[in-house]
Amino acid sequence: MSGLHEECGIFGIWSPERSALAETVYYGLYALQHRGQEGCGIAVCDDGVITVHKDVGLVGEVFDHLTLTGMPSGNMAVGHARYSTTGGNGRRNCQPLVVNHQKGRMAIAHNGNLSNADRLRSELELSGAIFHTTSDTESIAYIITKNRLTCGSIEEAVQRTMDTIEGAYSLIVMSPTKLIAVRDPFGFRPLCFGRFPDGSCVVASESCALTAVGAAFERDLEPGEMLIFSDEGVRSDRSHCGKAPHRICVFEYIYFARPDSVIDGVPVHDARLRAGRILARECPADADIVIGVPDSGLDAALGFAHESGIPYGIGLIKNKYVARTFISPGQESRTDKVRIKLAAVQTTVKDKRVVLVDDSIVRGTTGRRIAALLREAGAKEIHFRVSAPPFLHPCFYGTDIDSEDGLIANHRTIEEIAQQMGVDSLGFLPTGSLEELCGGAGCCKACFTGEYSTTVPASFRKDKYDIPLSGNAE
Amino acid sequence: MSGLHEECGIFGIWSPERSALAETVYYGLYALQHRGQEGCGIAVCDDGVITVHKDVGLVGEVFDHLTLTGMPSGNMAVGHARYSTTGGNGRRNCQPLVVNHQKGRMAIAHNGNLSNADRLRSELELSGAIFHTTSDTESIAYIITKNRLTCGSIEEAVQRTMDTIEGAYSLIVMSPTKLIAVRDPFGFRPLCFGRFPDGSCVVASESCALTAVGAAFERDLEPGEMLIFSDEGVRSDRSHCGKAPHRICVFEYIYFARPDSVIDGVPVHDARLRAGRILARECPADADIVIGVPDSGLDAALGFAHESGIPYGIGLIKNKYVARTFISPGQESRTDKVRIKLAAVQTTVKDKRVVLVDDSIVRGTTGRRIAALLREAGAKEIHFRVSAPPFLHPCFYGTDIDSEDGLIANHRTIEEIAQQMGVDSLGFLPTGSLEELCGGAGCCKACFTGEYSTTVPASFRKDKYDIPLSGNAE
Amino acid sequence: MSGLHEECGIFGIWSPERSALAETVYYGLYALQHRGQEGCGIAVCDDGVITVHKDVGLVGEVFDHLTLTGMPSGNMAVGHARYSTTGGNGRRNCQPLVVNHQKGRMAIAHNGNLSNADRLRSELELSGAIFHTTSDTESIAYIITKNRLTCGSIEEAVQRTMDTIEGAYSLIVMSPTKLIAVRDPFGFRPLCFGRFPDGSCVVASESCALTAVGAAFERDLEPGEMLIFSDEGVRSDRSHCGKAPHRICVFEYIYFARPDSVIDGVPVHDARLRAGRILARECPADADIVIGVPDSGLDAALGFAHESGIPYGIGLIKNKYVARTFISPGQESRTDKVRIKLAAVQTTVKDKRVVLVDDSIVRGTTGRRIAALLREAGAKEIHFRVSAPPFLHPCFYGTDIDSEDGLIANHRTIEEIAQQMGVDSLGFLPTGSLEELCGGAGCCKACFTGEYSTTVPASFRKDKYDIPLSGNAE
Amino acid sequence: MSGLHEECGIFGIWSPERSALAETVYYGLYALQHRGQEGCGIAVCDDGVITVHKDVGLVGEVFDHLTLTGMPSGNMAVGHARYSTTGGNGRRNCQPLVVNHQKGRMAIAHNGNLSNADRLRSELELSGAIFHTTSDTESIAYIITKNRLTCGSIEEAVQRTMDTIEGAYSLIVMSPTKLIAVRDPFGFRPLCFGRFPDGSCVVASESCALTAVGAAFERDLEPGEMLIFSDEGVRSDRSHCGKAPHRICVFEYIYFARPDSVIDGVPVHDARLRAGRILARECPADADIVIGVPDSGLDAALGFAHESGIPYGIGLIKNKYVARTFISPGQESRTDKVRIKLAAVQTTVKDKRVVLVDDSIVRGTTGRRIAALLREAGAKEIHFRVSAPPFLHPCFYGTDIDSEDGLIANHRTIEEIAQQMGVDSLGFLPTGSLEELCGGAGCCKACFTGEYSTTVPASFRKDKYDIPLSGNAE
Repeated sequence: MSGLHEECGIFGIWSPERSALAETVYYGLYALQHRGQEGCGIAVCDDGVITVHKDVGLVGEVFDHLTLTGMPSGNMAVGHARYSTTGGNGRRNCQPLVVNHQKGRMAIAHNGNLSNADRLRSELELSGAIFHTTSDTESIAYIITKNRLTCGSIEEAVQRTMDTIEGAYSLIVMSPTKLIAVRDPFGFRPLCFGRFPDGSCVVASESCALTAVGAAFERDLEPGEMLIFSDEGVRSDRSHCGKAPHRICVFEYIYFARPDSVIDGVPVHDARLRAGRILARECPADADIVIGVPDSGLDAALGFAHESGIPYGIGLIKNKYVARTFISPGQESRTDKVRIKLAAVQTTVKDKRVVLVDDSIVRGTTGRRIAALLREAGAKEIHFRVSAPPFLHPCFYGTDIDSEDGLIANHRTIEEIAQQMGVDSLGFLPTGSLEELCGGAGCCKACFTGEYSTTVPASFRKDKYDIPLSGNAE
Repeated sequence: MSGLHEECGIFGIWSPERSALAETVYYGLYALQHRGQEGCGIAVCDDGVITVHKDVGLVGEVFDHLTLTGMPSGNMAVGHARYSTTGGNGRRNCQPLVVNHQKGRMAIAHNGNLSNADRLRSELELSGAIFHTTSDTESIAYIITKNRLTCGSIEEAVQRTMDTIEGAYSLIVMSPTKLIAVRDPFGFRPLCFGRFPDGSCVVASESCALTAVGAAFERDLEPGEMLIFSDEGVRSDRSHCGKAPHRICVFEYIYFARPDSVIDGVPVHDARLRAGRILARECPADADIVIGVPDSGLDAALGFAHESGIPYGIGLIKNKYVARTFISPGQESRTDKVRIKLAAVQTTVKDKRVVLVDDSIVRGTTGRRIAALLREAGAKEIHFRVSAPPFLHPCFYGTDIDSEDGLIANHRTIEEIAQQMGVDSLGFLPTGSLEELCGGAGCCKACFTGEYSTTVPASFRKDKYDIPLSGNAE
Repeated sequence: MSGLHEECGIFGIWSPERSALAETVYYGLYALQHRGQEGCGIAVCDDGVITVHKDVGLVGEVFDHLTLTGMPSGNMAVGHARYSTTGGNGRRNCQPLVVNHQKGRMAIAHNGNLSNADRLRSELELSGAIFHTTSDTESIAYIITKNRLTCGSIEEAVQRTMDTIEGAYSLIVMSPTKLIAVRDPFGFRPLCFGRFPDGSCVVASESCALTAVGAAFERDLEPGEMLIFSDEGVRSDRSHCGKAPHRICVFEYIYFARPDSVIDGVPVHDARLRAGRILARECPADADIVIGVPDSGLDAALGFAHESGIPYGIGLIKNKYVARTFISPGQESRTDKVRIKLAAVQTTVKDKRVVLVDDSIVRGTTGRRIAALLREAGAKEIHFRVSAPPFLHPCFYGTDIDSEDGLIANHRTIEEIAQQMGVDSLGFLPTGSLEELCGGAGCCKACFTGEYSTTVPASFRKDKYDIPLSGNAE
Repeated sequence: MSGLHEECGIFGIWSPERSALAETVYYGLYALQHRGQEGCGIAVCDDGVITVHKDVGLVGEVFDHLTLTGMPSGNMAVGHARYSTTGGNGRRNCQPLVVNHQKGRMAIAHNGNLSNADRLRSELELSGAIFHTTSDTESIAYIITKNRLTCGSIEEAVQRTMDTIEGAYSLIVMSPTKLIAVRDPFGFRPLCFGRFPDGSCVVASESCALTAVGAAFERDLEPGEMLIFSDEGVRSDRSHCGKAPHRICVFEYIYFARPDSVIDGVPVHDARLRAGRILARECPADADIVIGVPDSGLDAALGFAHESGIPYGIGLIKNKYVARTFISPGQESRTDKVRIKLAAVQTTVKDKRVVLVDDSIVRGTTGRRIAALLREAGAKEIHFRVSAPPFLHPCFYGTDIDSEDGLIANHRTIEEIAQQMGVDSLGFLPTGSLEELCGGAGCCKACFTGEYSTTVPASFRKDKYDIPLSGNAE
């Protein structure tokens, strides 16, 4: 129910034998679909020829049986899932981005956001570049292409590109002969790899995708690491490792990632249980039952229950059929959207003092309506606990908080927020507990603290280059 | 993850004022979508003229914005959600069924199954009837039509029809001037009604649909009761009440209904918690953690945990994007379908003795694969607990167990089933506890006991009249 | 450009061997598509099992590659093309109509209209019949079904049905074992049959469909004749032959049929050339060029040119891309619909006195706009010649002139019509010449003369039973 | 029925007032649809913001009511229709091409082919350019963009681009403030402009599009001319006029253009009539009837008839429903594709010596089958006359004859071709008559003579950069 969105999930596979890799990518993208529901695509490389299919929509919408089985076999493939916006003005921004250049064709899948994207794009434009998309991935493609003109290999060109681009990027680059995976030196976004028994190697945003396709998790890519998969096997290039502190996005643990994933050694479900336990210690509540907002608030709710000793209950049911095609009730409708999406379980909350746990509050609207649903079902008291600190600053690394506007926590005290949401008490996770939540790993928490790891642009709007497009076209 | 399917959900609305009722039905069907995903439809009655739109697919697929807003306003409307079969050979079987007859037009939405359907159909055919669909609802329409020729009113015709039809039926019949809701004398299927502040009345299979659209629950229809909504207000006809014992399908509580619904006075979530508690008492296990199979095993798992004192954990994650369009891996694929749908949370189950709770076992295939997933994630022991007794007999009242073939519990001991599923122990809910589960209400448990409340046909196949249709057509 | 529409085209095939008959029907329907563009369908009978696919749309829209190749092979098949209405409210009315009855399944394809449809339907309703469609074909199905209960065979049941139904019907009835083709005793609508070298037999509305699929034309069915195709070969039953005078619809020659078809021994192209010649004699014009309105006015224009000695020219070009999906300009648009559909060839008409030939005038609107186009292109004089007499009466036999309202020729002199259309002179084909046009065959000309061959209903509206349906559904 | 395809049709509009221009472009593209059926698109400029919708398909498929009415109003718009290939591998190649560059956004619609495309693309790639499409239009966009960096205006940048690009190009370029139309110095492809009474100006490939939307034809652009439409009115820049001889593609007259269009002062219908007349003089035949292959052979057939005195007849009927979605019969089918598309009118050709006129012969396959159809319908003799000379050389300027392979006229005498096609005699238009056909204008006839007006590449394949794409994607 969060208003937050991750930017993407990526998945790559390299196989010693030509086989139906698009199918494996398809299942891998299903496992990464939570990272992006706007659009998706799969590019297959078959003997140097790259074929791509991509469009706006969920994996199950973009790939029907004919399309999937119509993809050629190959020995490399890369897939991408992109996050869902309202307008869907984005076929042109779907990935993998596939471009032709002097050395042939190249496919790129990107998770993250460059913090110097504007400057890079301006420089490229001043050299006569034309842009077909509005994403910073196209700038990356340009820079790799330019570097490739003077570099001896595609991996050298990518390495040199890492000297120029700044910010968050987990990348998979597929050339006619190599599959290259890169994680930025801060490690803002996750990226891991695994193997199949037959020697095929898989790279994915989250380990849940490896498990889903039946591959064995091998390890996370180190921040700054590049892996090159080719006929010569797997090679690791750590030239950019250690050049920056580890800054995995803490929100991967709190909300974005699937609970069964393990990121940089820390199981996501554990991190959320810990968040709940911390909340129970730091913001206790005198209550009869602890419930979570499904799905992402459930783990922290369970942690809160375990730590506090207050029983865990199932107090909210999520309608699992409300998807992209759902028609939201209009203003004059007597129906309320949240009421369709969520239902209170009366017997759990009636006449109870309820601890309600959710992963975050952005604008507070949904939380207020959930509180109202619980009141209507008879809840006596509602103690809202949030398994993240309050958002105060924009994110430049791939989360869609692109300005401070609309953040309910700005310029409001906790009491004011609680009152606005209609809850009896409100508690946030203390910023100081984030490292504990992450299991000690160095994490990026700039959206809470405003302390950014890179230079950041003076202004920032993710849709800066977006020109209105009609329908889903282009 | 159950192999079981309910046959339908129905929703009707009557309003004193002409308004955009199709929208309300649309949201109501969203809340009933769990009862049927094969197809759906909405019929609106506007000043005596009945307009219908229906097709194969989920509510969000059949009704796009244009279609929904293109439905006329009216003062009555009825909707139907139908359960999903593999073939999709069913546009002609989508409901509401709308027919023309001597007195005008009539729309019918039906949840349930007649146990004397075959005989009725044969008799009608011998009188020259032609059938366009393969469902018993068309027989009901014929009988109402024939009765209407000699009855003074549509409600009288429906009452007389109740003398002829046997089995499970919760019906909504819409004539040009009246909306009629009927529940069969056994009350096999639920049906309740509620009101809006503006005087509109709503009838729905489950109370969750009333809540979703913002109507206040008023009460369940009594078994055998008929409600007539018209310009003269709401009238109840109880002529058929008390003619049969109460036999609400126990599986409504165990699996079909949404946990936030209340059926015949018993909250579904409570019934499931109780099922878990009974299981903990009757089939205890020495274990470290209790987990449920999402979504319908979660409530009973929590009940088991509460009763046993063993901690409740989140051990399985369901991929919420696996829907109708998902392309199942073929035989030769290295990917396993269950692996895409469900993932084990390693940190919850690793090195643990796990109690795994699910709502039912039909063929046992899914359960075996889930057990394998848990083993792979490190579970030391798996104690499978099922919040229902073993299935042994076909259902003639609207559940798709149409023969004893394939039921894993037939001709096998519990130990044999446990071994086949690869679990360390297995426990079923005792048949004798079903009344406790239902909160004391008289329930139908024929699929466990073979004791049917009505005469049943010698043979039974739900697709008996089904002639192959290509694609989704017709 | 005519406002007239035929009701249907039908096509049936019987083969001694099981083969991919749906494909042949598909191509046959392409050749009959001009007879109906609203919807279409194909039913295949494979070893007694009838499978059907049908929907609203053109043959090329309803049948994509998957659907067509997904149809089962069989030894009988029947197809239907239905005419296009604006609303498209008609999936339920698409044919073949497939129904289940006491003796199994039956598919019916029907071209024509019963003149006693209302009475038949009322009688059936009074016996308790329910109707799913709004077409008279369902009444035919009912009557065959009822007769079948007491008849020894399906063909006997169809024969007996011919005693009851009146009006225009070319029918193909497919039972599990037989394919039956029937033409009504007046022969209002065409029906012919042919053979493949392999012994397969084909029945079609027009001979052009036989040629298109590569079958050899054998002969027209006689009015009142029934052909029965079965494992016992082809059998003709002429019990109803000679019971009525031959009354082939003259508009089949003037407009409906394809010029390369031969109907009842008369080539359609010849009939149209003759119409043009008669016009040249009866309504001569002093002019420089003769042009036809494409496509159906071209043949008569050529006949006029040949007879008159005035040169034939290509003066109007039809935009062949304007199809069902074309979005007509709204009221406030600066664009004119006729201008998109038709263009004048300036070099043909500039400074010329033009004879403009079209097949009919219904409301006169299109003719007026065509005249305006020609004026704009420089035509000095326009002499409009119509290769049919003026419409004055409704048709009860399958053409969509369902009332006298809107017919420009009613209550207007020829001079008034000419003035209203903005032409310098106007001439219609004399009613007395229609037999000459038809090559001497007895024809139905009731829409011109009001002399009907059967009893006709007091009132008539083809959409009498039509209840509004939303979108294309049902 | 020709195997030839034109590459494109373009349409632009500039209006002094903001209005619903997309609608006008939509109708304009309908009138240009014959120039390209692969895909189409419309870009609208509203106060400097360019919105585009484009996709694979016909105008009526790509633009439904919602999409068209959803396009913003604006004061400039440009549209494009692209020719249809089998694979449909082309969403990325649909136009208008819309790119972002240093000065904002730019939309380009292009008809024609650059003969130095390969060299330009190589040079751009060596400077680090990346290409998203496989068309030479993207190279034009790059060069304009690079020139724009140092030019004071977009029109100056386009002028300088004309110094670099060679070959055939009729272009419409839309910047945020200007609409620019350019015709290459040879004038290979047509381009004309017209005006609406309200002062709006329209540019289109053919005059038929002006007429269709109700604009008054003003004049053709001169070869080399540029028109700039902006708030300052219409300005003509003739800097590149007169730098090359006039070389309008003669096939525009013979086949591509619509007969009602007038190109460079010559009505297309007249040119075709003349072609028929020349044929009658140069390749006379002793025959009874002259028939044309619809649609493009009809005009020349009429010319032949007029000149020879042999009567003109309607001998072939084209099935107007055979469109993109038609499923061609497979190899083992008993049905022949040409038989579905075309039907002989028996009464016209039976026992006759027939002159059959078509516009061109590429591989001869279709012609052979048409001849067979006529024989089957009883034609005694067939004298095939072609209103063009034999194709012998590839075209580098926008027609899809990309190599000499498969051209039936290569290495064969006329007698050999006649024998192969099964006709009694065969005659081609003499190359020396082409100027007469064009009304004296200088025309490009390189495909017949091999005399190219520009330097041409050593090798040429239109799909050189085409990488396989699955389905319609991208």
